[in-house]
Amino acid sequence: MAMKLADIASLLGGTVIGDGGVEISAVAGIDEATDGDLTFVANPRYRAKIAETGASAILVPPDITAASKPLVVVSDPYVSLAKVLAILYPEEKPVPGVSEKAFIARDAVIADNVTIYPGVFVGSRARLEKGAVLHPGVFVGPGAMIGEDSVLHANVVVYRRCVVGRRVVLHAGVVIGGDGFGFANPGGSNVKVPQVGIVQIDDDCEIGANTTIDRGTLGKTWIKRGVKIDNLVQIGHNVVVGENSIIVAQVGVSGSTKIGDAVLVGGQAGLVGHITVENGAMIAAKTGVHKNVPAGAIVSGSPQMPHGEWLRVQSTLPRLPEMRKELARLVERIEGLEKKIRNNEE
Amino acid sequence: MAMKLADIASLLGGTVIGDGGVEISAVAGIDEATDGDLTFVANPRYRAKIAETGASAILVPPDITAASKPLVVVSDPYVSLAKVLAILYPEEKPVPGVSEKAFIARDAVIADNVTIYPGVFVGSRARLEKGAVLHPGVFVGPGAMIGEDSVLHANVVVYRRCVVGRRVVLHAGVVIGGDGFGFANPGGSNVKVPQVGIVQIDDDCEIGANTTIDRGTLGKTWIKRGVKIDNLVQIGHNVVVGENSIIVAQVGVSGSTKIGDAVLVGGQAGLVGHITVENGAMIAAKTGVHKNVPAGAIVSGSPQMPHGEWLRVQSTLPRLPEMRKELARLVERIEGLEKKIRNNEE
Amino acid sequence: MAMKLADIASLLGGTVIGDGGVEISAVAGIDEATDGDLTFVANPRYRAKIAETGASAILVPPDITAASKPLVVVSDPYVSLAKVLAILYPEEKPVPGVSEKAFIARDAVIADNVTIYPGVFVGSRARLEKGAVLHPGVFVGPGAMIGEDSVLHANVVVYRRCVVGRRVVLHAGVVIGGDGFGFANPGGSNVKVPQVGIVQIDDDCEIGANTTIDRGTLGKTWIKRGVKIDNLVQIGHNVVVGENSIIVAQVGVSGSTKIGDAVLVGGQAGLVGHITVENGAMIAAKTGVHKNVPAGAIVSGSPQMPHGEWLRVQSTLPRLPEMRKELARLVERIEGLEKKIRNNEE
Repeated sequence: MAMKLADIASLLGGTVIGDGGVEISAVAGIDEATDGDLTFVANPRYRAKIAETGASAILVPPDITAASKPLVVVSDPYVSLAKVLAILYPEEKPVPGVSEKAFIARDAVIADNVTIYPGVFVGSRARLEKGAVLHPGVFVGPGAMIGEDSVLHANVVVYRRCVVGRRVVLHAGVVIGGDGFGFANPGGSNVKVPQVGIVQIDDDCEIGANTTIDRGTLGKTWIKRGVKIDNLVQIGHNVVVGENSIIVAQVGVSGSTKIGDAVLVGGQAGLVGHITVENGAMIAAKTGVHKNVPAGAIVSGSPQMPHGEWLRVQSTLPRLPEMRKELARLVERIEGLEKKIRNNEE
Repeated sequence: MAMKLADIASLLGGTVIGDGGVEISAVAGIDEATDGDLTFVANPRYRAKIAETGASAILVPPDITAASKPLVVVSDPYVSLAKVLAILYPEEKPVPGVSEKAFIARDAVIADNVTIYPGVFVGSRARLEKGAVLHPGVFVGPGAMIGEDSVLHANVVVYRRCVVGRRVVLHAGVVIGGDGFGFANPGGSNVKVPQVGIVQIDDDCEIGANTTIDRGTLGKTWIKRGVKIDNLVQIGHNVVVGENSIIVAQVGVSGSTKIGDAVLVGGQAGLVGHITVENGAMIAAKTGVHKNVPAGAIVSGSPQMPHGEWLRVQSTLPRLPEMRKELARLVERIEGLEKKIRNNEE
Repeated sequence: MAMKLADIASLLGGTVIGDGGVEISAVAGIDEATDGDLTFVANPRYRAKIAETGASAILVPPDITAASKPLVVVSDPYVSLAKVLAILYPEEKPVPGVSEKAFIARDAVIADNVTIYPGVFVGSRARLEKGAVLHPGVFVGPGAMIGEDSVLHANVVVYRRCVVGRRVVLHAGVVIGGDGFGFANPGGSNVKVPQVGIVQIDDDCEIGANTTIDRGTLGKTWIKRGVKIDNLVQIGHNVVVGENSIIVAQVGVSGSTKIGDAVLVGGQAGLVGHITVENGAMIAAKTGVHKNVPAGAIVSGSPQMPHGEWLRVQSTLPRLPEMRKELARLVERIEGLEKKIRNNEE
């Protein structure tokens, strides 16, 4: 598939600077791009490469207005990249149909236009809405529900009674609805607390490979509309994640913690249980969050502190050994002074 | 299923304060509970909600003796919650039987009353004891053993010759017995050290979704009776975890480390290899454990220190930039004093 | 299988000290070894056990020259252990053949001598080279390629068009080629950036259980020859890992970061995106790497600092509360001095 640059610019609502007649057949990174490719500059650290790229044209933000190559100027090149990729690389949709090599319980309710690959298991009273796609090895437990046009990649597991909304993407190996980690008298008799709740994932969420989301002890663990979760994340029982929040890889969220809307959680951060992170907060990578985070706050460190304070502490930390020596020197100088003054007094 | 509150109290060995004739049909969290629900207060931070809950009755610890709702006073409400959930929400046991859509090697030994779902693979000379349940997509390698009444959830993998005890629960995606990470001359020729040992999991353990436990290089990696491990935990080759220990999500334990009995390891902690954590130790979340931990010790920080010391360091850390400025001011004041004294002496 | 110690020594290029006629039938750890076993001392902390082991003979490094047991002296006992295990515990190779309980697309290209177990799915236009082994539950997506003699353990997922080289081992639950985590306008509209690239894994790599490697947004995520990756590691889109590098469990590498050759990354370390780690660098466990790492450097801490500096900081850190008190005392002493001098002057 090939398109004229001017037509791409028009679809993106962007402005061409230079020759709009250039033919674009692919999109490539700025280092790899060659003739016929469109490339892009979203991250400022790649700007210097505009002069060197082999691309035929470049998607750029508004402050770049001249180059030796044709440009398409747009307000947010990364958003525009998303659009142009969707146009030039249309997703291959599988042909709907139910494989005879899948196992589907007799009382499961399967809508039209569902795609079920070999090796899928759909339990009793489970419900699949139209357009749902279940790749090989997917397990949908008894009474679970998969919404319209949702895609469950290979070997995804959705335990009994959990509810997955519409247009949700679950990547390979995701486990939804395993038992929450609840044991009374821990380290002693470790009495299992039955986990009788569910997981509910609302519309338009995407969950990365091998991420695990535990069912509620009671009630539900709730991932709200538009949330995007990366790979290998752990979400504990009865956690709530608010709309459009972003959780990067290997984050762990302990039981009953509530995360607001539009929160960004950096990779490998850990949140203790029973706390609240308010709307719009940002949690830096590797942060250890042990208490509530106010709306819009940025926190870092383990344990967490306000990000600005953390930056000051971290920039001072390498001086700590020198500070200790300085302290020892000061003690000596003060002793010297004290002695002199005593001598003078005598 | 509905029960009178007095009957529930009697089963729990608790005392009713108020109307024991109230009918209870469900259990719910203190915020969500409505008419007919029993709720509970285990974590002190939810006490204030006793006055507001819509529940018909509340499980409480002994120091709560009056409320506007009927109470059941028990010694440990969380333990009692476990019991009452097991009564009101009895687990649905699958009907035993072996699916024709499973693959079972001819020389595998399968006891009576085993449940094998479609898509299961049981290798040569593997052995399943009575009451074992293998959910769809489970792999039991050649010569592996699964004990009585153990439940392997969907897509669990047990490599060759590994041994799983009785009443063990392995959640979806757990991998038991992958090769330990052993390469001689690392970064150079990376010579693979064959991993010829096994994993042994003793009775009454529960392992969370997508957790991985590597086989021993030689001998065994050993998870002892009653151990509970959360999701996405990594246990290296030849690790030993002692009885009833608790390991929270995303912890990593490196090869040959020995963890004692009744040890609690917080989420995202990491333990280096070849060390010993003695009985009853507690390792806080995110701790970097680089040396032995004595019995009963509590450690925090990365690298670890005694928890009390860590608390003092962490509470001082935000003052570090101010301390540095104070030091600089002191240097100036001392210089001023030194100058004055020199002047006085002249 | 049993061998004379002298024959083992000869295969290893080692020297026997003591009786070379001893029969060896197994290899065991120094604590567990009994009659007929060979054991080894690679890690210095196990040296003291040479006198106590029940083994019939011991593999030792050159500086150990006498013991009450026969010794085999070799330059690197861990490399020699790898060799002797490969001899005494030969891997059981599966008998090639394609199960009728697997699903293989009609236009997939399957070489001779391939082993395909029940429950495998091979997509359209996928290609398997000779000697490849696909364990139960493996998914090979449309257009993907698996090289000669590579082994995909149970429930491995290789998404569409990804390329796996020769003699690669993917442990159970590995996910290759899930979508990179790319959303424009994060926390707002979360516009999905289609991930149209691939993952390429070169020859002789080994990837641990439940590790996830995301496909490139454009171009490829690239794991070069001889790389060994442990369990539960996350590799982001367009990351490059250079030859023979070692990545320990639970590490996370963010998008577009380039790791050089022979780099060692310790467990639970995290690397931000768009940085470069040069050849031969070492990153300690739990390090937070937020900027480039020079060739051969050793870094620790979060955020990272040179390892030597980090050691000095960490050894001073426990003194911080005492330093603060000392500072307060110095302030008082200086105030005392200042007062005295003022008094003397008056």
